[in-house]
Amino acid sequence: MKSLGVGLIGTGYMGKCHALAWNAVAPTFGDVARPHLVHLAEITDDLAARKAAEFGFARASGDWRALIADPEVDIVSITTPNAFHAEMAIAALEAGKHVWCEKPMATALGDAEAMAEAARRSAQVTALGYNYIQNPALNHMKSLVDSGSIGTVNQIRIEMDEDFMADAAAPFGWKSAAGSGHGALDDFGVHPLSLLTVFFGRVARVVTDMAKPYPTRRVEDGTARPVETADIANILFRLENGVGGTIQLSRSAWGRKGRIALQVFGSEGTILFDQERMNELQIYEARGAPASQGFRTILMGPSHPPYGRFVVAPGHGLGFNDLKVIEARAILRAIAGEPAHLIDFETGLSIERTVDAMARSFASGGWVDVNHS
Amino acid sequence: MKSLGVGLIGTGYMGKCHALAWNAVAPTFGDVARPHLVHLAEITDDLAARKAAEFGFARASGDWRALIADPEVDIVSITTPNAFHAEMAIAALEAGKHVWCEKPMATALGDAEAMAEAARRSAQVTALGYNYIQNPALNHMKSLVDSGSIGTVNQIRIEMDEDFMADAAAPFGWKSAAGSGHGALDDFGVHPLSLLTVFFGRVARVVTDMAKPYPTRRVEDGTARPVETADIANILFRLENGVGGTIQLSRSAWGRKGRIALQVFGSEGTILFDQERMNELQIYEARGAPASQGFRTILMGPSHPPYGRFVVAPGHGLGFNDLKVIEARAILRAIAGEPAHLIDFETGLSIERTVDAMARSFASGGWVDVNHS
Amino acid sequence: MKSLGVGLIGTGYMGKCHALAWNAVAPTFGDVARPHLVHLAEITDDLAARKAAEFGFARASGDWRALIADPEVDIVSITTPNAFHAEMAIAALEAGKHVWCEKPMATALGDAEAMAEAARRSAQVTALGYNYIQNPALNHMKSLVDSGSIGTVNQIRIEMDEDFMADAAAPFGWKSAAGSGHGALDDFGVHPLSLLTVFFGRVARVVTDMAKPYPTRRVEDGTARPVETADIANILFRLENGVGGTIQLSRSAWGRKGRIALQVFGSEGTILFDQERMNELQIYEARGAPASQGFRTILMGPSHPPYGRFVVAPGHGLGFNDLKVIEARAILRAIAGEPAHLIDFETGLSIERTVDAMARSFASGGWVDVNHS
Amino acid sequence: MKSLGVGLIGTGYMGKCHALAWNAVAPTFGDVARPHLVHLAEITDDLAARKAAEFGFARASGDWRALIADPEVDIVSITTPNAFHAEMAIAALEAGKHVWCEKPMATALGDAEAMAEAARRSAQVTALGYNYIQNPALNHMKSLVDSGSIGTVNQIRIEMDEDFMADAAAPFGWKSAAGSGHGALDDFGVHPLSLLTVFFGRVARVVTDMAKPYPTRRVEDGTARPVETADIANILFRLENGVGGTIQLSRSAWGRKGRIALQVFGSEGTILFDQERMNELQIYEARGAPASQGFRTILMGPSHPPYGRFVVAPGHGLGFNDLKVIEARAILRAIAGEPAHLIDFETGLSIERTVDAMARSFASGGWVDVNHS
Repeated sequence: MKSLGVGLIGTGYMGKCHALAWNAVAPTFGDVARPHLVHLAEITDDLAARKAAEFGFARASGDWRALIADPEVDIVSITTPNAFHAEMAIAALEAGKHVWCEKPMATALGDAEAMAEAARRSAQVTALGYNYIQNPALNHMKSLVDSGSIGTVNQIRIEMDEDFMADAAAPFGWKSAAGSGHGALDDFGVHPLSLLTVFFGRVARVVTDMAKPYPTRRVEDGTARPVETADIANILFRLENGVGGTIQLSRSAWGRKGRIALQVFGSEGTILFDQERMNELQIYEARGAPASQGFRTILMGPSHPPYGRFVVAPGHGLGFNDLKVIEARAILRAIAGEPAHLIDFETGLSIERTVDAMARSFASGGWVDVNHS
Repeated sequence: MKSLGVGLIGTGYMGKCHALAWNAVAPTFGDVARPHLVHLAEITDDLAARKAAEFGFARASGDWRALIADPEVDIVSITTPNAFHAEMAIAALEAGKHVWCEKPMATALGDAEAMAEAARRSAQVTALGYNYIQNPALNHMKSLVDSGSIGTVNQIRIEMDEDFMADAAAPFGWKSAAGSGHGALDDFGVHPLSLLTVFFGRVARVVTDMAKPYPTRRVEDGTARPVETADIANILFRLENGVGGTIQLSRSAWGRKGRIALQVFGSEGTILFDQERMNELQIYEARGAPASQGFRTILMGPSHPPYGRFVVAPGHGLGFNDLKVIEARAILRAIAGEPAHLIDFETGLSIERTVDAMARSFASGGWVDVNHS
Repeated sequence: MKSLGVGLIGTGYMGKCHALAWNAVAPTFGDVARPHLVHLAEITDDLAARKAAEFGFARASGDWRALIADPEVDIVSITTPNAFHAEMAIAALEAGKHVWCEKPMATALGDAEAMAEAARRSAQVTALGYNYIQNPALNHMKSLVDSGSIGTVNQIRIEMDEDFMADAAAPFGWKSAAGSGHGALDDFGVHPLSLLTVFFGRVARVVTDMAKPYPTRRVEDGTARPVETADIANILFRLENGVGGTIQLSRSAWGRKGRIALQVFGSEGTILFDQERMNELQIYEARGAPASQGFRTILMGPSHPPYGRFVVAPGHGLGFNDLKVIEARAILRAIAGEPAHLIDFETGLSIERTVDAMARSFASGGWVDVNHS
Repeated sequence: MKSLGVGLIGTGYMGKCHALAWNAVAPTFGDVARPHLVHLAEITDDLAARKAAEFGFARASGDWRALIADPEVDIVSITTPNAFHAEMAIAALEAGKHVWCEKPMATALGDAEAMAEAARRSAQVTALGYNYIQNPALNHMKSLVDSGSIGTVNQIRIEMDEDFMADAAAPFGWKSAAGSGHGALDDFGVHPLSLLTVFFGRVARVVTDMAKPYPTRRVEDGTARPVETADIANILFRLENGVGGTIQLSRSAWGRKGRIALQVFGSEGTILFDQERMNELQIYEARGAPASQGFRTILMGPSHPPYGRFVVAPGHGLGFNDLKVIEARAILRAIAGEPAHLIDFETGLSIERTVDAMARSFASGGWVDVNHS
């Protein structure tokens, strides 16, 4: 496998995660060529140069277009604010680069459609940074489901909760303004939808309720400004395959820090997962003596690939950032023409369209079909 | 406090629970007169006599009307199949007896209305056997909420799951026939509604989805009969006070044995409870140093009344049947004219009407208002 | 089965538990004759009369010897302070009564020996109130161990912790005086020993460390009095069958309310239990695909006898007091000549002798053999 | 801060961890100069060259002495089998290099003493790879203890359990041969001792029991060879400051994968930690209303440094390998003359001497003093 040249646009938290992943992917997996860290772009030359030294990139630039024009760059990591994704991703694809873009795809459905269209026109690999789907625990869940461990799935519940908007006294911020989107629905909703879509199938129809726990927030002059986004959203859904379930979202759920709690019910068992304990999976199998049945907590270990590439002993634990390293390897595999577990722009668009349907349901007050085509 | 005469109709599981409660209430609490176990009725004289000896009742009868006519009986425990509740309860009330009737109230909304009407006409105490509301953990939750521990409640989630219908291979039983009701919605839904109603307020409107995980079940001749009730129901709701939330019900949730999981989110904290660990309550309070905040698991003890009437040491645990003893005392208090924490026929009717609205929502496919008057 | 006459001496917390058990045993189990509550004794006639009314006893007496002389009394429940156990139990046995005596057996090893000797001379049933051994979860553990679920046991750890002595500011109480015994060692140690002895075998040798977290406690005049008992004890042990392990005891362990945590390691699996979650048992079986192995949490239910006699649905939970009802039935069975799971005075003496060896080990500073004969 | 040159000897699991840490330390922390990966040594030139390309090292060598002679190397990572630690570390120190050596320090107490002596003679930084002490959760525990959150510590329990030796059918391996050491005592014991020593103080005296769950293991010819090491060890200890406690070690504990369970009891509270859930800390504080007290589970987040350097959101989780990155930064800080949280060769020797005392206690059958000088 040839060593690829990497370009990185943006060095905020996700830029750092990409940089860590590009540094770690070869030592961790030992089965991919170590990528060359070719070019880093930031909004000023100085910041770009400083971050390039820190992250180990050879060249730096205050202009992201220079990075895209760099012939040594084979793949572009886009980690800038969401509003820039479409322009950069389309430019990179048109320049013949592979694209690894952070989620959510874009801030407008039209932009996401344009990105997917650009991907369709290109022969390059596209990937969105839905790293939760890379968790060995969830992939083990998938293999258990596929092997019939819990029979036929008949119901799915997903909760995603954090508390970064829970403080009623916090000032009005950009996430409370309508320009940021619907609120929890798109800020959060895309994550549960990435899990649903990849592991269980596309959503066919939804009914949504949304709520603003704090109708106003204080602005600088001390007055109260009406909050325009909803920190809470509850959705009933049906998948295209008929399976029903619920999605519950809150970014004002005190005490929840990174909860993505999944409950999958089947005709022969149940599987539970919670991202806050991302190295554990629980399964109940309705087999054997009833007196001995119970939820079994499986600690991730080398028998849950690719955990063993990180740690040789079970139960020692992967971290959130490790998921990005797995994602980086999936992209390298995809580029090498091997099967890869990723959400590309096409699937990403399907997620955006589901969010759109959820929002329309709340506006209309009833069930709404997702328009997938 | 005068010793009351007790009549018990029915000796199935709930009949036994009532008998245990009547035997235990005086030694446990020490502040109520030990009731006289006067009369027990069953469907035959023999069964009635045998159970009377076992349960400690003085008289036995194969005719429940004899029990109601017994002048020494002050209060009647009704624990017969639900279809008999209305007739018996109304007869008892008309005979001037207090009534302790098991839930659900009745199998038809009209019957529940007639029961509530009979209660309104009478001066007697009525109580429905919603024993989950008696849990010291939940009453501690209520006192924490009332004292502002979690600020203003803004969202409530309740899940109720068991797995007694989860076996796809189990034969078609009466709970799968339309005559039994809607399925999980009324079989289960009344319990979460009892908690919502008593602790947080009445439900104003709902939207419901329902599902049958197994469309058919096998009957005796080996053929498949279509299932007429839904083992799964999901509901989005709004309370009259504006608080929103979700109810998720499944009686086909493998591994769940007695789960009633409650999540209450507020502007300053969160409270969690799960009936499967009925002696624990979790609270997150958004106070003090962020580095030290977390969910606190409170084990029930003597500082959570009336736990201390059962066990003098904390953390030793009450059992499900103990809730019935607490309920029995509440009834004795109500009869003595003291304040009591109970669900009477009026509130029970409100629960039945909410279930009715949920069912109508599923039929109509949209939001439906609960008709409380 | 003939209905037995019951006498109860003492109406403190344990007296109340016995009373509740005698009231509940027949309705709960339905397979034993309802006992007659014949005679209750307390330290004054008045108190005895009041408690007899409350508990449902026919006769009351301020003199326990009158109770023992009562010909209608077949079995005597002894729930008085420990110092009285020996005298009362021996008198009852000599009067031809069966004896159900609360633990610990006695306050001096010599008294325990005299009680065991009296039991040996008598044809009556003796039982000590070690109710933890009645837990369906622990009896399921035993059946799993016996059936080879975890292979050959090779190591056992038991922790018993509460926090009723944890407050450094609490005044000097009788449990801190040497007259009360060694401290955690006998106050607590007898419970883990009851589990070890009944489920795994007798202890052969021990080495003990003990500690006083608070060397002095304040007395009424404000001065500090040296604490004479040790709230903490740690023991390494070997059973007669060679299995090793540890016992850790603390009555000053803040946050622990009724923890009796058991870890049983075997050649093919592990079993965990904690009394604070007394309705759960965890088992890890080293079988099947490693990727699917994990600790399975089994919720008690009707498949764990006699849980089903209390509640028909699994996962609804027994309480601490229910263990006493199971114990009462075991005694009725023993009296009827059936096999019964109980700790009689002979086994109780073996426990007392083990405590004695632990204390001697601390005094001598090394390993000490238990003198079982 | 000047960029340091790094040499890495060994590329097994720990070598990979060091490589990942050296790649990640600058992007993660952003406050240290990115080290130059100068030289990698392995047992053949080929392997060294291949791993250098994978790990990002500039030069490779089949001879570790060439690495130590390399003038561009400032610090040497030693991750070879334990028997080589002493020779390599002493050579590196004598060549004026800083040394980061994996634990345990050495296979013989004399070697550890020679290493400590070499460190004393040198002006260089030495560090042992006791990465568990780097966990933000444990450092938060330390700050809680220091700030008086749980009052005065009076008892400590540590369990360390895994199950990699639990399979009775596994063949005789080198860890069962006497040449590998005592068994769990040193293979595992050093980890709990690293926590005890760094966070609570040095061990003064111990009494130890050890056990071999499987007395023999099968060798290639099918015969049974006696096992020479003990997979299980239990220790009672007293620290120099008088605090007592227990250490329980098993590498045959089925189901335990990476358990290091710590219970710290104090006069005003209790702290719990388990490495299998390394992102959580539990604390019970005996303050406020008893009805509201409970164990609080704190999820690690940015308020627990340096968590925030890895992930900006709380509750998302660090992984085991991240601890090595924290360790790498501590070494860079130590080299820069800043305060650093590390176990140097001197403290490492103290740990080895404690293990030695534990082994002597088992041989002698009683309490033994640790010889720290």
